[in-house]
Amino acid sequence: MAICDPGGSEIFRHACTGLSGIVAAKMAYTSTQKIRFDDVDGAGIVYYPQFFHLCHKAFEDFFDDIAIVSYPRLIKEMRRGFPAVAIKSEFVAPLTYGDTAIVTVAVDKVGTSSVRFYYRIHREHDSQLCFEAHITTVFMDLDSRKSEPLPDEIRTLLEGML
Amino acid sequence: MAICDPGGSEIFRHACTGLSGIVAAKMAYTSTQKIRFDDVDGAGIVYYPQFFHLCHKAFEDFFDDIAIVSYPRLIKEMRRGFPAVAIKSEFVAPLTYGDTAIVTVAVDKVGTSSVRFYYRIHREHDSQLCFEAHITTVFMDLDSRKSEPLPDEIRTLLEGML
Amino acid sequence: MAICDPGGSEIFRHACTGLSGIVAAKMAYTSTQKIRFDDVDGAGIVYYPQFFHLCHKAFEDFFDDIAIVSYPRLIKEMRRGFPAVAIKSEFVAPLTYGDTAIVTVAVDKVGTSSVRFYYRIHREHDSQLCFEAHITTVFMDLDSRKSEPLPDEIRTLLEGML
Amino acid sequence: MAICDPGGSEIFRHACTGLSGIVAAKMAYTSTQKIRFDDVDGAGIVYYPQFFHLCHKAFEDFFDDIAIVSYPRLIKEMRRGFPAVAIKSEFVAPLTYGDTAIVTVAVDKVGTSSVRFYYRIHREHDSQLCFEAHITTVFMDLDSRKSEPLPDEIRTLLEGML
Repeated sequence: MAICDPGGSEIFRHACTGLSGIVAAKMAYTSTQKIRFDDVDGAGIVYYPQFFHLCHKAFEDFFDDIAIVSYPRLIKEMRRGFPAVAIKSEFVAPLTYGDTAIVTVAVDKVGTSSVRFYYRIHREHDSQLCFEAHITTVFMDLDSRKSEPLPDEIRTLLEGML
Repeated sequence: MAICDPGGSEIFRHACTGLSGIVAAKMAYTSTQKIRFDDVDGAGIVYYPQFFHLCHKAFEDFFDDIAIVSYPRLIKEMRRGFPAVAIKSEFVAPLTYGDTAIVTVAVDKVGTSSVRFYYRIHREHDSQLCFEAHITTVFMDLDSRKSEPLPDEIRTLLEGML
Repeated sequence: MAICDPGGSEIFRHACTGLSGIVAAKMAYTSTQKIRFDDVDGAGIVYYPQFFHLCHKAFEDFFDDIAIVSYPRLIKEMRRGFPAVAIKSEFVAPLTYGDTAIVTVAVDKVGTSSVRFYYRIHREHDSQLCFEAHITTVFMDLDSRKSEPLPDEIRTLLEGML
Repeated sequence: MAICDPGGSEIFRHACTGLSGIVAAKMAYTSTQKIRFDDVDGAGIVYYPQFFHLCHKAFEDFFDDIAIVSYPRLIKEMRRGFPAVAIKSEFVAPLTYGDTAIVTVAVDKVGTSSVRFYYRIHREHDSQLCFEAHITTVFMDLDSRKSEPLPDEIRTLLEGML
């Protein structure tokens, strides 16, 4: 769970051949997560909605580690959040019980209110790419349910990862 | 999903030989729930915490069908709920993907603020008892997080099931 | 939970203005699902990975009701399944605890081994469109983890819904 | 995530005044787990079945760290496991989004095939005890679904924690 410069890493070279080919992230955040006993489905592999749960946990870790405010505080005290508005994803290889998932979060595009994140999930034991997704979120007032411009501190953080 | 007089049913005869031997429910509520593709664990059977999820869904159905206020309204508008405070349960036989669970809710004991529910889960295809639990809940103000005496209408409903 | 001709329905007119504008489904399958107490997240709305869980439950219901073999039998006895390989989705409006989700499954494209499904989720109480997704799946041997041509009976069923 | 001698710790003094008063564990294993965005329910606190999920994750961590075989290998290669057969638990205080759970696993009783574990969950920020449970499991052949005597290596490990 640390910001790293992925420039020289195997993971980042993978990132350059990803979903859209337009990723040019200089910085990425990595969260390592064990696949748990209940994450699998009736076919014995990780149930596909769980991949998005892995992504969200990495997003929470990213915020808690890097941002000036943890995600729980943003949600509960500031009543703001980043609900998903669009997803484009590909499932490349399965995860099974006993695997460890390396989830990489990068920032792909920053708009006035919207942020598009780019996620990649690799299996730890063989570095196999399993999943990638572009997830577009909007910064939102949770009470009014209206979008808002990104606050300066969050914009600076996210643009610094482009 | 209906209140039934279980007096003459197979399910109820089972109920008389249950966990504690002290159940004397006259009325029970039944919720039928499909076991889903993601309910199983790495061993291919329903992950044990999911049995409590089956119970809670039956509790929600019971409230939504029978009480004067649905559980969502109780929670969101009246800001009251029934958090669990104690559980005693036994797992008798497994459920697997493809099974249908028959979840029976009975009221076992009504105190000033507390209600003890008695749950039983049977497999539909062979009527095998899979699980039973006594779950004690307390009627609580969700904002102050203090218990409160049961409102008269809810007390009447629950005592009518003793 | 029934095959319906959506041609004249409000739901289907919505479908014509959807994600891609290319949907021309003649037939759709609908599964009605209560939003449950645990489906929400820390912001009080349905956690976004749960939308895919709603879709998968509708897919299971579709298979169990319509296909010549239930999905549990396909998975457990025939050792075949339809893992997701690509998703494109949009989140239009939130669901909250107390809502009922109307999940519509349509078949959008049938290839040799692949099937693209088109899902839409509406809130029951106000008919608001909340979510839509194209989910591409591949018919797969679960033991060899290789794709296979669709069996004739399944192809006939799915092509009949185009 | 480490075996510790809880003798002098605050946690262990709590353990001595626990659910049954009969706990005399000399050793305990601790797993630290973040409460996640989706762990809460419609009342904004951790959904009670999730407490058992926290326990199971701690059990998996315990096995993976301490036992001669990881739990995934036990399940998938040796086709053995420890399904729960009985639970007795109390919920003392809530967990909410943003909390960190300290989950302590102790061994309470070792029979021929059965093992009773004793779990306690504390909130990290104020050391409040939130939950405790005795969970009885049986060592089982997952294919025949029959119980078996504990293998010597596992018995030695578990008895060493009494």
